[in-house]
Amino acid sequence: MSTAPASPEIERLVQLLAKLPGLGPRSARRAALALLKRKADMLEPLTAALQQAARNIRECSLCGNLDTRDPCALCTDPKRDVKIVCVVEDVGDLWAIERAAVHRGRYHVLGGTLSALDGRGPDALSIAPLLKRVAEKEISEVILALNATVEGQATAHYLAERLHEAGVSVTRLAHGLPVGGELGFLDDGTLSAAFRARRPV
Amino acid sequence: MSTAPASPEIERLVQLLAKLPGLGPRSARRAALALLKRKADMLEPLTAALQQAARNIRECSLCGNLDTRDPCALCTDPKRDVKIVCVVEDVGDLWAIERAAVHRGRYHVLGGTLSALDGRGPDALSIAPLLKRVAEKEISEVILALNATVEGQATAHYLAERLHEAGVSVTRLAHGLPVGGELGFLDDGTLSAAFRARRPV
Repeated sequence: MSTAPASPEIERLVQLLAKLPGLGPRSARRAALALLKRKADMLEPLTAALQQAARNIRECSLCGNLDTRDPCALCTDPKRDVKIVCVVEDVGDLWAIERAAVHRGRYHVLGGTLSALDGRGPDALSIAPLLKRVAEKEISEVILALNATVEGQATAHYLAERLHEAGVSVTRLAHGLPVGGELGFLDDGTLSAAFRARRPV
Repeated sequence: MSTAPASPEIERLVQLLAKLPGLGPRSARRAALALLKRKADMLEPLTAALQQAARNIRECSLCGNLDTRDPCALCTDPKRDVKIVCVVEDVGDLWAIERAAVHRGRYHVLGGTLSALDGRGPDALSIAPLLKRVAEKEISEVILALNATVEGQATAHYLAERLHEAGVSVTRLAHGLPVGGELGFLDDGTLSAAFRARRPV
């Protein structure tokens, strides 16, 4: 009796599924079982989708978005405003902003944040290409849509300085009450940010 | 601006990942992103493992286990006791018992439970093949390792009657305190089962 209850093929599948964010060993096992039990409507379509993704999806050389085309659909969309660039840490953030349908300009994916702790300096991020875009193109505003974490805000601060040097207008997202948020459950930092940024009604 | 933030290929991948148990739409998006960002060490190995699984893993025609071989490794292992058959609802339960290394006999996967509500009668489960195994082989004990749910126990009750008719010894797993469980957090059903089944020390 071995410690691996299932065949090596199944165990390997479980191990690989368990590497996905959001799946632990237990849920990876459940996912593997679901796939194996439903070959035609789950396993095979997923395999095909992964193959297609591996073959066709690449990083946009302009903005860092993931797409089948390079430059990506967002960078080549004539209806989007070339002059406004929204800087995000990650492609996931770009997706979130697109879902909110709140930005009609272009994007720039940094690929992370500056981090002294992890030894990530400006060269580890897509900062030079951003400054190059700003220097070469007619860009009027750079929106820093970085996470409201210590590292995100430190990175935004660094970028703001560099972008001001380049003579471009720089904005960041507002801090405040999340929509639907209740005051009593809010952390002090958000609450004081919301107070400081209060607006006349 | 469309409601789908990413390319159709990525959206399709996200949708398929979201079908996996344990992954919602949000975590499916994170998983897709992780896969796309780490093609060489995540996406490609997972694709290969899924392909192999689709091609090689099948249901054992004797016990219902999933394996590359039919009959499966457990059914053909000469070191396992042919005379003791452990009946489980699902292959996942078989894996759990194998991980616990607690059973050295064979298995029989029912494929679910009886359910009047969902219209699952005995014919929808692998019950006839189980009775056939018991009738044809030298089987001394059938262990009913069904879930301690209403439907699992109703199914166990039905199976016990049919198996007694066939003249085989039938057992079920003990109910009681889970190991590490605290009395104060236990439901009444488990507590009273543990009391009724108390043993001398």
